Amino acid sequence: MRTCIGALLRNSWSFGMTTREKRPEAHEREDRVARGTLHRPLLAENVPAWDIECDVAVVGFGASGACAALEAARAGARVTLFEAGSGSGGASALSGGEIYIGGGTDVQKAAGFDDSVEALATYLKMAGGPDADAAKCDMYAENSLAHFEWLKAQGVPYKGTFVPGKIIEPATDDTLIWSGSEEAWPYSANAKPAPRGHVIQWEGWGGGRKLVDILEARVRDAGVDVRVDAKAQSLIVEGERVVGLVVRIDNRPVHVRAHRGVVLATGGFAMNEDMLRRYAPGTMKLSDPIGENDNGSGILMGIGAGGDAIHMDEFFTTCPWIMPPDFVKGIFVNEAGNRFINEDCYHGRVSRTMVDQPGDKVWLLVDNSIFSQPIELARISIAAVGDTWEEVERELGLPEATLAATVHTFNRYAAEGHDPVFRKHPQWLKPLTEGPFAALELNFRESYFSFFTLGGLSTLPTGHVLDRGGEPVPGLFAAGRATSGLPRSGHGYSSGMSLADCTFFGRQAGRSAASAN
Amino acid sequence: MRTCIGALLRNSWSFGMTTREKRPEAHEREDRVARGTLHRPLLAENVPAWDIECDVAVVGFGASGACAALEAARAGARVTLFEAGSGSGGASALSGGEIYIGGGTDVQKAAGFDDSVEALATYLKMAGGPDADAAKCDMYAENSLAHFEWLKAQGVPYKGTFVPGKIIEPATDDTLIWSGSEEAWPYSANAKPAPRGHVIQWEGWGGGRKLVDILEARVRDAGVDVRVDAKAQSLIVEGERVVGLVVRIDNRPVHVRAHRGVVLATGGFAMNEDMLRRYAPGTMKLSDPIGENDNGSGILMGIGAGGDAIHMDEFFTTCPWIMPPDFVKGIFVNEAGNRFINEDCYHGRVSRTMVDQPGDKVWLLVDNSIFSQPIELARISIAAVGDTWEEVERELGLPEATLAATVHTFNRYAAEGHDPVFRKHPQWLKPLTEGPFAALELNFRESYFSFFTLGGLSTLPTGHVLDRGGEPVPGLFAAGRATSGLPRSGHGYSSGMSLADCTFFGRQAGRSAASAN
Repeated sequence: MRTCIGALLRNSWSFGMTTREKRPEAHEREDRVARGTLHRPLLAENVPAWDIECDVAVVGFGASGACAALEAARAGARVTLFEAGSGSGGASALSGGEIYIGGGTDVQKAAGFDDSVEALATYLKMAGGPDADAAKCDMYAENSLAHFEWLKAQGVPYKGTFVPGKIIEPATDDTLIWSGSEEAWPYSANAKPAPRGHVIQWEGWGGGRKLVDILEARVRDAGVDVRVDAKAQSLIVEGERVVGLVVRIDNRPVHVRAHRGVVLATGGFAMNEDMLRRYAPGTMKLSDPIGENDNGSGILMGIGAGGDAIHMDEFFTTCPWIMPPDFVKGIFVNEAGNRFINEDCYHGRVSRTMVDQPGDKVWLLVDNSIFSQPIELARISIAAVGDTWEEVERELGLPEATLAATVHTFNRYAAEGHDPVFRKHPQWLKPLTEGPFAALELNFRESYFSFFTLGGLSTLPTGHVLDRGGEPVPGLFAAGRATSGLPRSGHGYSSGMSLADCTFFGRQAGRSAASAN
Repeated sequence: MRTCIGALLRNSWSFGMTTREKRPEAHEREDRVARGTLHRPLLAENVPAWDIECDVAVVGFGASGACAALEAARAGARVTLFEAGSGSGGASALSGGEIYIGGGTDVQKAAGFDDSVEALATYLKMAGGPDADAAKCDMYAENSLAHFEWLKAQGVPYKGTFVPGKIIEPATDDTLIWSGSEEAWPYSANAKPAPRGHVIQWEGWGGGRKLVDILEARVRDAGVDVRVDAKAQSLIVEGERVVGLVVRIDNRPVHVRAHRGVVLATGGFAMNEDMLRRYAPGTMKLSDPIGENDNGSGILMGIGAGGDAIHMDEFFTTCPWIMPPDFVKGIFVNEAGNRFINEDCYHGRVSRTMVDQPGDKVWLLVDNSIFSQPIELARISIAAVGDTWEEVERELGLPEATLAATVHTFNRYAAEGHDPVFRKHPQWLKPLTEGPFAALELNFRESYFSFFTLGGLSTLPTGHVLDRGGEPVPGLFAAGRATSGLPRSGHGYSSGMSLADCTFFGRQAGRSAASAN
C-alpha cells in the first residue's frame, strides 16, 4: 500500500486515480410525478373507503421507522409500517451502524475515558450550529446511557473494545472510536473530549445493515404489520388533523386510517435532484448522494399538512481522505494556497469546509514521510509532486510565495509543536520537510464527496411535527432525516449523530404517536 | 476628513468608533402571535360575509405592490391594495432608488458604454448562483430597456449622467453608476462589463422614497382602492384556489374576495427574528436588518396555501466599507491573516464573503497613502497601526509570517501590476508599502452589516406562485422579496437588482392576476 513519492516523481508528475461518475438522474422524472401528489394532503371527506385501519402508521423502514414502530407497538398501539422499497433498510442500512453515545458508557469507562452528560450536551450544541436544538441536545445527553442499554436490550451487540486513532469505521468488530471533532479546536476548548462513536459488533464496514436487521426482527416480534413495496403518496387530513395516508400498493391507492397518528420516517432528500436544487444548491457540485429512497417525500407531505421545514440548505458531506490516518498530519490548502481549517477535525467537518472554498478543488499537502496511496474509493488524484514546495507550487500553476509560504509558516510552528493559526492538536503536528512532496487533489465533482441532507421538518423532542406557527400539527410525527434533528449543521456533524437521532427520537415519535388523542 | 495614520500611531494604537446596537427584539412577540394566524389559509366556507370585493387584491405597498396594482388596474381590473403600515414605502423606500438596468440604455450609450442583452443576461445568471432563475434573467434582460422607458413614463426622473468610480449611491442627482461586480473577476471574464445602476434623480442618498412616491401617485391616478393600516392575516382558499384574504382593519377582521387573484408583495423576513433563526441562521451574527414590515407574512401565507419557498437561507449583506473608495486598494484578511476575495468586487459581494470567514471579524489592511477615516455609519474601528506590517501583525495578536507574509506576497505582485491570486483588476492595485500601516476591523456584530433576505416563494416570471409540485397555485401571485427572484444569491447581489426585480416582476404579477380566470 505504501508508496514513496519519489517513485511517482520519477514516473510522472501526475497520474489520475480519478474516475468520473455521473450524478443519478433517473429519479428526476419520477420525483416530478411524485411531487404532484405529495405536496397537498387528501381531505378525509374525499376518501372513498378506509382500506386499512390502525392506531399508528409509520412511513419508512430505516432505523427511525423501526424504532418508532417498535415503541408504538410496545405501548399497545396497533401499528402498520409502510416501506417504499422491498425490505427494511433505508439510508441507515448503508451506514456503518455507528451511534453517537456518551455520558460515561461502560465501553468509555473501560477504555479509561471519563465522559459526562454535560460534556456531551455541550458538544452536541456546538455541533448543531447557530440554531442547535438545545432541547433535543439536552434530552439526548441525559438519556444517552439509557438509550445505549435499550439498544443492547434489542440485541444490538457491542464487543466493548476501544480502537484509538483516527478512523472512519473500524475494519474490525471493535466498538468505540473517536468519531467526531472532540479533541480538535474549538470543541476541545469547550467540551471535555471523549470518544463517543459506538459501533455495532461487525467485521468490516457496513454494520448498519445488521443494525436494521436486528431492529426489524424486534419490530416483527412486536407484531407490527409490515407492508413493503408500499409507497406513501399523500397524507389525509380532517380539518387541521392528520388522520391517515394514501399508500400505493400493487399499483392502486390504499387509504389508511391512523387513529392516533402518522410517523414520517422517510429520510432526507439526497436522491431528489429537484429538491436539492431548490433547497440545498450547495450540494449541486458534489458527486455522490448517500441514500436509497431518500427523495424527500415525507418532508413534502409534512409541509403540505402544515408542517414547517427548517434549515433545508444544510448537508453532511465527506470525502474519505483520512485513510491513511497519517494524512491528518498533512495540511489542506485552497486554490489561493491558503489553509482553511485545523485538519485534525472530524473528516466530515474538514470536508464540509473544503466545499466552502472558492473554485472546484482543494489540495492536501503531504511529505514523503506521511504519504501513501489514498484509498481508491476516495478518487483523490495526485496533482503535483516536487523536491521542494516551490516546485509543487509551480507545478500547480500557483503564483510564487503562496502555497510555499503557507507551508513554510506551518512548518516553522509545527517544528515548535504548535499551530497558532488554526490550532491543530500537537499530536497531529509535524513539519512537512521530508521531500519529495506532493499535492493530492480533492476535486468536488470528481473525487468521492458523499453527502446527505440535514434539513427537514421541525419537530419537538417528542416527535410532534411543528407548524410554521410553532404549534404541533395534530396527528403528525416525524423522526430521522425527514426532520432537522440533533445533527443540523454539516460543519458540526460527527459520525453516529444521525443514527443517534434516528434511533432515539424515532423511539420518542413512536411513543408519542401511540399515546396521542 | 483625511487623517494620517501616523497621527493615530502617535496617539494610541487603537481607538474605537464602534457603537453597539442591539438587534431589534420588539417584533418577536408580535411575530409569534401573527404566525399562528398566517400559516394556514381560511376556508371560504368559513367566511361569514365578504366585506370587500375586488378583482385583484395586492398586499404590500412597496415598489412591488405599487407596480402590481398599477398594471392590474390598467389592465381593467378592480384593484384593492392593502398595506400594513400607515402609508406606502416598505423596504423600497429605505433604498437608494437605484434600479439595475442594461442592454444599452440611452444613459449607458451617452457615457460611452456598449452594453448588450446577452451581457446583461449572462451577468444576471452568474449573479443568481447555482440555481439562478434563467427564465427570469432572460426575460428581464430582453425587456430591461422597455422597462426603463416604462419607469420614465411613470414620471421617474433620470438626469442621464454617469459618475465613474466605486460609489455606493451618488451623493449628487446623477444617474448611472457601477453598482455591481461587472468589472471584477470572474464576472468580467464572462460578461462584457457595463455600469447598470440607474439611480432616480435625487440629491443625496435615499431616492427610494421618491421612487415609491411617484409610483404611489400613478397607483392613485389609476383608481386603485388603497387601504393603509390594513394588515393581511391569512389567505382564503376554496379547494386549491386562493379566492381572497383576511385583513385586519380597525382591529376587526375584514374578509376580502379577490375574484381574479391575490398578489403578495409583502417583502422578505429580515425583521422576523424567529424566521431568521429557522431559515437563515447565517444572518444571526449580523447587526442591522433593513426593513420595515418585512416580517415574512406573505411568505408564510403563501406556503400555507401550498406555495413553495426556496433558497430561504440566502441573504444580502453589506458594510459600507468603500467610503473612501481608495479602500478598494486595501486588502481584506481573515483571522488567519489570509486574503479571501478580490476586493474590487461589489461591496456587498465582498461583505457577504467576509461573513463566511471563520471567527467574528475581518481586517481591511491599508497604508498611509490610501487611509482616511471610514464613514461613521460603518462602525469600522482601527484595530492596529504600525510602522511595519510585522508590527501590525503583532498588534493584532497574529502569529509571525501570517498577515505580514500575505501582504508581502500581495505587494510583490501589485508592484508588477497584477494579482495572480485573487485577480483584482490592475486599476485597484497598488503595493501597500507607504507606512505607517493600519488594520481596520470590520466586526460582524459591532460594525454596520445591514442585511435583508433573498429567499421566498417560488414564482414563474409571470408572477404565478408555484407549489411544491412545480404547478401554479390558482389565484396566487407574488413579487419582490416575498419571492426568490432575480437576486437570489447574496454572493452575486448587485445594487439595484432587488428594485429591478420588484418593479419589473411586480408589473408581471399584476398583469397576470388581472387576466387570471
